[in-house]
Amino acid sequence: MTIVTREISVNFPSKVTFGNGCLEEIASDIQPMGLKKVLVISIAPLLPKLSKLIDRLEKGGVELFINTQIEQEPSFLDFEKLVQQYTDKDIDGVIGIGGGSVLDIAKLAAVQLKSDQKLEDLVGKNLIQNRHLKLICVPTTAGTGSEASPNAILIDPVDHQKKGIISPYLVPDLICVDPSLTCSVPPSVTAATGLDALTHCLEAYTNKFAHPFIDIYALEGVRLIAANLVNAVENGDDQEARYQVAMGSLFGGICLGPVNTAAVHALAYPLGTRFHIAHGLSNALLLPHVMAFNIPSAPKRYAELAVAMGCEKKANDTATAMAGVEKIKQIIEDCKLPSKLSDLHIPEEAIPEMADDAMKITRLLVNNPREVTLLDAVSIYQAAY
Amino acid sequence: MTIVTREISVNFPSKVTFGNGCLEEIASDIQPMGLKKVLVISIAPLLPKLSKLIDRLEKGGVELFINTQIEQEPSFLDFEKLVQQYTDKDIDGVIGIGGGSVLDIAKLAAVQLKSDQKLEDLVGKNLIQNRHLKLICVPTTAGTGSEASPNAILIDPVDHQKKGIISPYLVPDLICVDPSLTCSVPPSVTAATGLDALTHCLEAYTNKFAHPFIDIYALEGVRLIAANLVNAVENGDDQEARYQVAMGSLFGGICLGPVNTAAVHALAYPLGTRFHIAHGLSNALLLPHVMAFNIPSAPKRYAELAVAMGCEKKANDTATAMAGVEKIKQIIEDCKLPSKLSDLHIPEEAIPEMADDAMKITRLLVNNPREVTLLDAVSIYQAAY
Repeated sequence: MTIVTREISVNFPSKVTFGNGCLEEIASDIQPMGLKKVLVISIAPLLPKLSKLIDRLEKGGVELFINTQIEQEPSFLDFEKLVQQYTDKDIDGVIGIGGGSVLDIAKLAAVQLKSDQKLEDLVGKNLIQNRHLKLICVPTTAGTGSEASPNAILIDPVDHQKKGIISPYLVPDLICVDPSLTCSVPPSVTAATGLDALTHCLEAYTNKFAHPFIDIYALEGVRLIAANLVNAVENGDDQEARYQVAMGSLFGGICLGPVNTAAVHALAYPLGTRFHIAHGLSNALLLPHVMAFNIPSAPKRYAELAVAMGCEKKANDTATAMAGVEKIKQIIEDCKLPSKLSDLHIPEEAIPEMADDAMKITRLLVNNPREVTLLDAVSIYQAAY
Repeated sequence: MTIVTREISVNFPSKVTFGNGCLEEIASDIQPMGLKKVLVISIAPLLPKLSKLIDRLEKGGVELFINTQIEQEPSFLDFEKLVQQYTDKDIDGVIGIGGGSVLDIAKLAAVQLKSDQKLEDLVGKNLIQNRHLKLICVPTTAGTGSEASPNAILIDPVDHQKKGIISPYLVPDLICVDPSLTCSVPPSVTAATGLDALTHCLEAYTNKFAHPFIDIYALEGVRLIAANLVNAVENGDDQEARYQVAMGSLFGGICLGPVNTAAVHALAYPLGTRFHIAHGLSNALLLPHVMAFNIPSAPKRYAELAVAMGCEKKANDTATAMAGVEKIKQIIEDCKLPSKLSDLHIPEEAIPEMADDAMKITRLLVNNPREVTLLDAVSIYQAAY
């Protein structure tokens, strides 16, 4: 191995807590922050699980504002509608408790509730000038890894594309990963979000800008998720499976900031924006096909991933790597996820337009180990069809 | 593998930068902090390497106070003498650039320059109430891992024991690990500090309170240091070796907060306090003997470490683990470090007193996979003699 001379920087949450039941404990981490007015962003079905936290914070003198309006794949408009209700409340902290959509909104709210910058001026990398509110994130899926990433992804209502706001200020002060919270997630969502997390790790490890500092998270995340996701899907109460997948998801989130994803995510976005297919499922549909496309450019890396997923070494790296693709297909099948775009009533005629959309996600395509042309994108969609 | 149900929490530096030359870049991370008066704690021989950083900060309007008084293994008195010079200067940030002693002092100075608490009231765990100054740490050895740990270890002049101050407030805001800074470290110091870092990883992985979240750092740290330390000692300009050992040292530092060290460190402390043997060398002298003592209580874990160090699997875990002990002895020998207490003119009669001292380090001994009695401590010192 030769050293990667590129400098890397990683923005970590200042405190990471991990373990079953840790949600109950975070009030004692929040209290020393001296917060007076806190906006809690979550979803209604989770509220019963938050009662102890809410109770402890309120008894500690914190005024809470609870919002459960955000739905899947939110847009800039959804965000602004939410934030407008609280701009005059002098909020000094935001707690996001939910899946990736809730967390992304909470992260941005902590910035925009006290900011002179307009939302549209934040789209892109490192454009946020400051964050004045404390930010706490608790993921309840495993997952987007949003709790550990500097990314917030929203749909722009003007062109219906997913736009990324990426900034160190979007990394929370405190995160709490409580695997027991994921036990009530239904099998199809467990499967889709788990494949999303797996994709984060896979795309970081095979990234053009992969880095040994991040490889340890990526490789271990792949190992944990590949070994445990099917169990978590088949038996939602399997504590061990939930625990390991939640840790893999957190590791995937850590990969997102310094290295990030690549062509799987770029090609998945149009499925979400055009056909409202959940983000995790979109990734799952494309993952094996992008892997097969990429292997010629990074056979050793894909072979290492295959071994981490439990595949035996074959005669050469390419053969081992291809066994990894079969393993991924098997995981998707065992998770009872659809495996073809055609299963989801996507018209085949939409492929050229989706490929056009995907080619615009240059911020991710530049990370891919193999260059993706428009024709390649069309071929990958066709293979996935 | 069954899950570890114990909750874990890790305090990370908010930003970690890693790479050759990153010291040159951190001025751009420090500038947005809006600091006006910064205390730089370092050692005189490093000053030429800091000129660009100092220049950039001063040009940015930061008033700098530079202190190079701290020597190896500082005491509470050394610390207070240093801090007293700056209490009326309204310092708002501290930058520590050096080995573990410099960093520990810098970390504590960032707390004590604006504090109502007395130093003696901070000794122990979680007793610091706040930190008002920004804290930036740059390690120049690899190393103590102090840049990533919540620990500061100083000698108490009353009883001449090493005392630990442990608090999340001692974890820096920003750390910069620039492996090229370690190239001028002489071979003996490279060897001793490298063994210290290796011990951090080894004692975390075999710890009674080991945790999978920390295992990834511990195991990879062992792998990197075992594979590269001898090269770094033999050829200080070996960029790859310096890079990998620096990363291993950082990983070892991350292990220190949530899991920490065990009997090697506890038994090493008396060598430092009584005979002024450098901390890393003290660990190296005891490491193989504590490993051999511990293996019956954790053969699988020690076997995994042996494999990470490049040993082949033997007939059973204990045999593999013992090969790991031989590997450690070989590394120590190849690093040209003394391997016996008797090589260092320590009188054999001091063993009972050292054992007495070591037994007082209960905060570390509780972490050891095998209980250490006073008689065990004496036997280990005798084996190391």
